Amino acid sequence: MRIDGEHRRSVWLAEDGRTVLTFDQTRLPHALPVIALERLEDAAAAIAEMKIRGAPLIGAIAAYGVALAVRADPSDDALARACGLLAATRPTAVNLRWALERMRALLAPLPPARREERAYAEAAAICEEDVAINRAIGERGLPLIEAVARRKRPGEPVRILTHCNAGWLATVDWGTATAPVYLAHRKGIALHVWVDETRPRNQGAAITAFELGQEGVPHTVIADNAGGHLMRQGLVDLCIVGTDRVARNGDVANKIGTYLKALAAFDNAVPFYVALPSSTIDWRLSDGAGIPIEERSGEELALVTGRTADGRIETVRITPEGSACGNWAFDVTPARLVTALVTERGVCPASEAGLLSLFPEAAAA
Amino acid sequence: MRIDGEHRRSVWLAEDGRTVLTFDQTRLPHALPVIALERLEDAAAAIAEMKIRGAPLIGAIAAYGVALAVRADPSDDALARACGLLAATRPTAVNLRWALERMRALLAPLPPARREERAYAEAAAICEEDVAINRAIGERGLPLIEAVARRKRPGEPVRILTHCNAGWLATVDWGTATAPVYLAHRKGIALHVWVDETRPRNQGAAITAFELGQEGVPHTVIADNAGGHLMRQGLVDLCIVGTDRVARNGDVANKIGTYLKALAAFDNAVPFYVALPSSTIDWRLSDGAGIPIEERSGEELALVTGRTADGRIETVRITPEGSACGNWAFDVTPARLVTALVTERGVCPASEAGLLSLFPEAAAA
Repeated sequence: MRIDGEHRRSVWLAEDGRTVLTFDQTRLPHALPVIALERLEDAAAAIAEMKIRGAPLIGAIAAYGVALAVRADPSDDALARACGLLAATRPTAVNLRWALERMRALLAPLPPARREERAYAEAAAICEEDVAINRAIGERGLPLIEAVARRKRPGEPVRILTHCNAGWLATVDWGTATAPVYLAHRKGIALHVWVDETRPRNQGAAITAFELGQEGVPHTVIADNAGGHLMRQGLVDLCIVGTDRVARNGDVANKIGTYLKALAAFDNAVPFYVALPSSTIDWRLSDGAGIPIEERSGEELALVTGRTADGRIETVRITPEGSACGNWAFDVTPARLVTALVTERGVCPASEAGLLSLFPEAAAA
Repeated sequence: MRIDGEHRRSVWLAEDGRTVLTFDQTRLPHALPVIALERLEDAAAAIAEMKIRGAPLIGAIAAYGVALAVRADPSDDALARACGLLAATRPTAVNLRWALERMRALLAPLPPARREERAYAEAAAICEEDVAINRAIGERGLPLIEAVARRKRPGEPVRILTHCNAGWLATVDWGTATAPVYLAHRKGIALHVWVDETRPRNQGAAITAFELGQEGVPHTVIADNAGGHLMRQGLVDLCIVGTDRVARNGDVANKIGTYLKALAAFDNAVPFYVALPSSTIDWRLSDGAGIPIEERSGEELALVTGRTADGRIETVRITPEGSACGNWAFDVTPARLVTALVTERGVCPASEAGLLSLFPEAAAA
């Protein structure tokens, strides 16, 4: 997708073919510096500190983290240690474990001397597949937007609400929830996106709004509190969000607050779609109750970082010094509130039967 | 209630018996300076700029605003102008209109020379009534908390979620939603309050958390996104919020995001209570669809003010410069999602029949 009019991906290699380059997303929307990951520990820290985030991008960076590790030390011990370190960075996103398992299964049987080259090739393949999958999610989801557009008067926009960032900066390119939006915009369909601010880390206000602005998609940032009111007023045609893990029954873990928007959508008969690559499905989990919910530091809620009027980046405290802050990063939206799942193979009901209709090979899992 | 251990109200008179003193709440939780209102325009600005906020306190300050106006000019024209100016400051809170109508109806028939004294006396009476009413709301609501406490093991707290600030700083004293909480705490019932941050103006993080801390009530500030997750996890025993206007059928206008919490409470069979003085009931409105919803500047969402680590108050932007921000201040929670209304006369179903059972004199209205 575009930054300042230039096409970029969210992860690529330096000229040496080994150093991994990505963006530090923590300073958005005010800056998006490139950072170089030279060692396993750099990759693990980038994920843990959320310099990079988004389930698919976490998977891609984790794969490159394994490549960086075996480059430094191709031994069995180092490989096992790398996978363990990376797996411990974030508990909720299943793509992380999926990517690590794929790397480990490929590399472990190989002689150590062959591991570096194959690791880089496999990480690159994961990235290419992510781009292709997200493009496919876009094509599968596009008809959902086109169907609404056909009911509109000429020039009247399709109004889409999204939560957090499931955009191209959460993936290698295109995004998941945003892929149908970007394709619709490029096809000339009039759109307006309601961007949930997404407290406490403000990924909507900082990242999704930035992305949409760079692509020229009309949008308005709103408080997380506002979506229910907008739906009651008839100002939302559909919701579409990403996810960090989908259970076998269609329950969806996503950024904290997603469940509240799904409740409001259900109460107002607004379609609520969840876009995902199939690597986000955890076939081993029968329902969402088994998904671990990451608790992060309360400081993420208490402290807000932004830019002052004269251009300085400052961090300010908004809570009383003596008040505790709680910070659960995700919630689980029950499948009954999800209108449909949008995957790279098509759109299906949020249910085991729905998922198996698209992924019959998982029936035995 | 207490600030630094000392009992304070949120509005009082200076030694001259005419200057109105109140707190500028916009710098909470870091500072709570006293401001003096000497003229009508000071009172109107304090309301419009939300230096003071909360439906009952807005009513009290508006009454004193009329008193300040007739002190400067007791003519019919000045009285009418004062009521018009004050009524235009905030559209949603009905207490504002209720207080102005009460002042106008009292003062208009009087000879101008008698208006100043009567205006101050009536504004003081409105304040005293507010304190008594809120205390009564506390006593009526207390059994709802006591009933939960009886089901707990010794020392296990009753977990209460609240949104925005319906505390003593939103009233003259006690608060509405907080009155039962403060009474329960003083009775020694173990409590833990989940405080919704309440974006975009952060009244929960800044004001409710400050109040609870000053009173010694255990509490945790959470993102507005988190309440649904907490309820699904069984970590909320009851919700209680205030309101800016209740329609005749029990529909409730309150701070934006209240509707989302009510949906989550309903979905998880958590009781959802709304506390209000009867001056908040708009008997002329058959349902909530007629309640005007204030739209405020998007800058309230884009800009966050807080304190830096070295003690400076700074304002930072958290959205991209080119992104629009939408800011609806209230939403309407349909009566079907409200377990009960807690008024100064008792607890009733959120319905016309329920309200009329407590306020039969309104049947003719």
